[in-house]
Amino acid sequence: MSSVNISIIGAGSAVFSLRLVSDLCKTEGLYGSKVTLMDINQDRLDAVYILASRFAEEMNANLEFSKTTVLEEAIKGRDFVVNSALIGGHDFLDRVRAIGEKHGYFRGIDSQEFNMVSDYYTLTNWNQLSFFLKIAKLMERHAPDAWLLQAANPVFEGTTLIRRYSSIKMVGFCHGHYDVREVAETLGIPIEEVDWQVAGVNHGIWLNRFKRNGEDLYALIQKYAANYDPRRFKPINPFNVQMSPATIDMYRFYGLVPIGDTVRNSGWKHHYNQETLVKWYGAPWGSPDSEPGWQWYKEQLGQVTGATVALAKAIEQFPEASLEKLIVEGSRGLSGDFARQAAQLYNKNSLSGEQHIPFIDAIINDSSARFVLNTLNEGAIPGIEDNVAVEVPALVDREGIHTEAIDPPLPERIVKWYLKPRVLRMEWALEAFIERDSDLIVEILLKDPRTKSYEQAKAVVREIFETEGLSE
Amino acid sequence: MSSVNISIIGAGSAVFSLRLVSDLCKTEGLYGSKVTLMDINQDRLDAVYILASRFAEEMNANLEFSKTTVLEEAIKGRDFVVNSALIGGHDFLDRVRAIGEKHGYFRGIDSQEFNMVSDYYTLTNWNQLSFFLKIAKLMERHAPDAWLLQAANPVFEGTTLIRRYSSIKMVGFCHGHYDVREVAETLGIPIEEVDWQVAGVNHGIWLNRFKRNGEDLYALIQKYAANYDPRRFKPINPFNVQMSPATIDMYRFYGLVPIGDTVRNSGWKHHYNQETLVKWYGAPWGSPDSEPGWQWYKEQLGQVTGATVALAKAIEQFPEASLEKLIVEGSRGLSGDFARQAAQLYNKNSLSGEQHIPFIDAIINDSSARFVLNTLNEGAIPGIEDNVAVEVPALVDREGIHTEAIDPPLPERIVKWYLKPRVLRMEWALEAFIERDSDLIVEILLKDPRTKSYEQAKAVVREIFETEGLSE
Ligand SMILES: NC(=O)c1ccc[n+]([C@@H]2O[C@H](COP(=O)([O-])OP(=O)(O)OC[C@H]3O[C@@H](n4cnc5c(N)ncnc54)[C@H](O)[C@@H]3O)[C@@H](O)[C@H]2O)c1
Ligand SMILES: NC(=O)c1ccc[n+]([C@@H]2O[C@H](COP(=O)([O-])OP(=O)(O)OC[C@H]3O[C@@H](n4cnc5c(N)ncnc54)[C@H](O)[C@@H]3O)[C@@H](O)[C@H]2O)c1
Repeated sequence: MSSVNISIIGAGSAVFSLRLVSDLCKTEGLYGSKVTLMDINQDRLDAVYILASRFAEEMNANLEFSKTTVLEEAIKGRDFVVNSALIGGHDFLDRVRAIGEKHGYFRGIDSQEFNMVSDYYTLTNWNQLSFFLKIAKLMERHAPDAWLLQAANPVFEGTTLIRRYSSIKMVGFCHGHYDVREVAETLGIPIEEVDWQVAGVNHGIWLNRFKRNGEDLYALIQKYAANYDPRRFKPINPFNVQMSPATIDMYRFYGLVPIGDTVRNSGWKHHYNQETLVKWYGAPWGSPDSEPGWQWYKEQLGQVTGATVALAKAIEQFPEASLEKLIVEGSRGLSGDFARQAAQLYNKNSLSGEQHIPFIDAIINDSSARFVLNTLNEGAIPGIEDNVAVEVPALVDREGIHTEAIDPPLPERIVKWYLKPRVLRMEWALEAFIERDSDLIVEILLKDPRTKSYEQAKAVVREIFETEGLSE
Repeated sequence: MSSVNISIIGAGSAVFSLRLVSDLCKTEGLYGSKVTLMDINQDRLDAVYILASRFAEEMNANLEFSKTTVLEEAIKGRDFVVNSALIGGHDFLDRVRAIGEKHGYFRGIDSQEFNMVSDYYTLTNWNQLSFFLKIAKLMERHAPDAWLLQAANPVFEGTTLIRRYSSIKMVGFCHGHYDVREVAETLGIPIEEVDWQVAGVNHGIWLNRFKRNGEDLYALIQKYAANYDPRRFKPINPFNVQMSPATIDMYRFYGLVPIGDTVRNSGWKHHYNQETLVKWYGAPWGSPDSEPGWQWYKEQLGQVTGATVALAKAIEQFPEASLEKLIVEGSRGLSGDFARQAAQLYNKNSLSGEQHIPFIDAIINDSSARFVLNTLNEGAIPGIEDNVAVEVPALVDREGIHTEAIDPPLPERIVKWYLKPRVLRMEWALEAFIERDSDLIVEILLKDPRTKSYEQAKAVVREIFETEGLSE
């Protein structure tokens, strides 16, 4: 048992924080640890603090919580800093998207080829990227040996940026690769029997290995794809797109199955308008990255935030109440996914699926385990520069991150037609940010199928950057 | 004096062939050589043959001409093979462009970001690329030690393709870099005093060095750009764009002056429609790559071809007539450029500016000279793969091509925002050709600002490839 100092920046992100807290409560190797919750939203912070403390108490977990609204305080002397903050919140994303749509950019200018995820801004996110660097710089000064665990998006741009411009230890996390399970499930194969690997960049990962006892299970996928009938695809919620027609279409073109959010990150072919979205990602939403799909997601988030604050209030007023009971009963009104997640919080035998706490455990207690992580390429994927963050499986132990050999390697088709153009977009976006040069954003928009004139691109960028004061 | 066997494939390209022949006549080191003219157009071939023979006679040049319509005959036993053939001719280009425009692609689908030159097709040119490989394969068999000098476009894709898929010695030529003179002239600097270098890829080259006695002349360019008034730009013909507003705009963004056809090869910002073209490349044409600009060019070409055939007829009927007199007088009706070129043919002290014959002279007679050539990168430009053809200055002697060190190196801005995306487009186009997979052309069009739907891209590609029988 090794106690460490952990902090969560943007802890007001309730779902996320409680998932980490519940994982911590189930990881006895980290008992005795101190957890600092940090957020600038006092109400959310207070609520999460109350719930986290009570949750640990009910789980008999030996953890100590504190809270702060001051970033430095959450960094000084910490061993692990988790960042899940979204600067400006969803309101910022919505405002920027609305300006984009006003100027003729369906779903906003940050929706770009191979990057359509609606809270993964890469062009207008200078506030977010600045915050990433701010944390890294504070860590260099106040916690130079600590690890920064990046959960906030864009993980691809963020990991590359921080690793290039800071000396701290840093790794990016995403849970997208869990959808490998759904692929296996669909084919009727128990995931435990599968020898799988994924590789690529964050939100652009591909199932390069999929075997059982040495036998290549891609034969099954091929058969599945050959018999696939898009009309029979009925998603249960907007995020339920792992086996959507878009996936099959991408598989046919790229030769491997795209995993997790990669399915959402195809090109314009699947994203021109609501009608196309519905065609490729299923009715009625057409993926999470449609107007109705994203609306659905924000409503869920809103309900969870509302519930969090309400629960915290209830616990304050009735200290004798059982949080477990309140959560399990209260979450019944939520959609299936959220209800399942809520129920899982108290299940001692099941972790949340977020990799952060198991990663800390592996590093601290040398309990070697396998992860899918975002870290610098350094040769893992040939054809991609060494100083670009890739998302690959890795073993983690006290010595750090040991990236697996990617075998079989990603096909040329994926490197040349998907990863390289995506990497270029990342490079362009980072240069625009580093130089604080919004003309580069205009230049990126000149390659955009939605741009009809230079004036249009110039106008939308000017309005967004001026209205939001991004260049400051 | 060393005699060699040279052949010119596509010799019916009259301007080009007579320029080479006149250069040969002025290169005494190659006297005694045998020149084979090859073309599938018998009329053009006959005409060029008559004119070439007569021209050499009047110049007292010891050269022996032959002609053939059979490709193999022009390859067997040759030391140098020049390829300037355009498979399908301008009619093919026009037909493909017209189908593109019908489907909503202004200037046709081969006009692409960083590749707007109207006879430089890269997507629908499988006929042209097949012919390149056919020549290379015939050379491997029948003239394995010979050099292939590539003049036909696309030189970038072509050089990369041949060098990757054939073992023959091969180099690509373009005369675009001569426009460095115009830059110097405009600034009032004698070109002989300038220490200059250009680097990039064919039709994408940049003036990376521009000095006099160690002093950086970019200070003058900066001043020139600062005082540049686009309203005062009046091109004398569509090609007169080296000092156009587009050039200044590119210089401001990329940090170096684009040279030659590079000016035409900017992004959509300068190419959306005729109005934009006129704004950036001057009235009335708006560059050679506009409807009226290209019309102008084809008319000139037509007149030259007409004049060639007429001249040859005249020589046949009146063997005592002086070709020199006929040419000089006959070319008076042509535009300034063509008239000057015609007059220059007989000027013993002035070569045409095409690099082919001086290159042969340098190789054969070890008369080390400086060229700007297309050859594999092999480290010349960092950030670009070794097996990609770049256009760089090189010394040539009996040992072959010695690429100059590129100093100062190209700025990141150019590598990242211009060369890398251009290289990716080349890679995509070559894969489509190698795999004979027109779906890849559709995929390229999905990135095109003119594409509004997948169906549109699919339809235009299908119509072009079916109508022209390109996949066969
Ligand atoms: N990596 C993953 O697996 C994953 C999954 C889902 C979401 N995300 C990302 O996580 C981030 C959060 O998403 P969300 O929907 O929970 O957003 P949210 O707005 O609900 O929560 C973010 C929190 O950050 C706080 N915050 C804002 N500015 C702050 C600042 N300066 N300092 C400290 N805290 C600040 C907010 O008050 C809020 O509580 C996003 O970037 C999202 O894309 C990542
Ligand atoms: N590298 C340079 O500096 C440069 C400059 C200008 C033009 N070009 C290129 O040169 C090429 C020729 O252009 P052009 O305007 O003279 O075209 P053109 O059509 O006038 O001449 C090309 C010749 O090729 C011949 N030809 C066609 N198919 C043939 C075959 N199968 N075998 C032999 N000959 C064949 C035609 O009969 C014609 O005589 C084009 O690719 C053009 O882009 C290169």
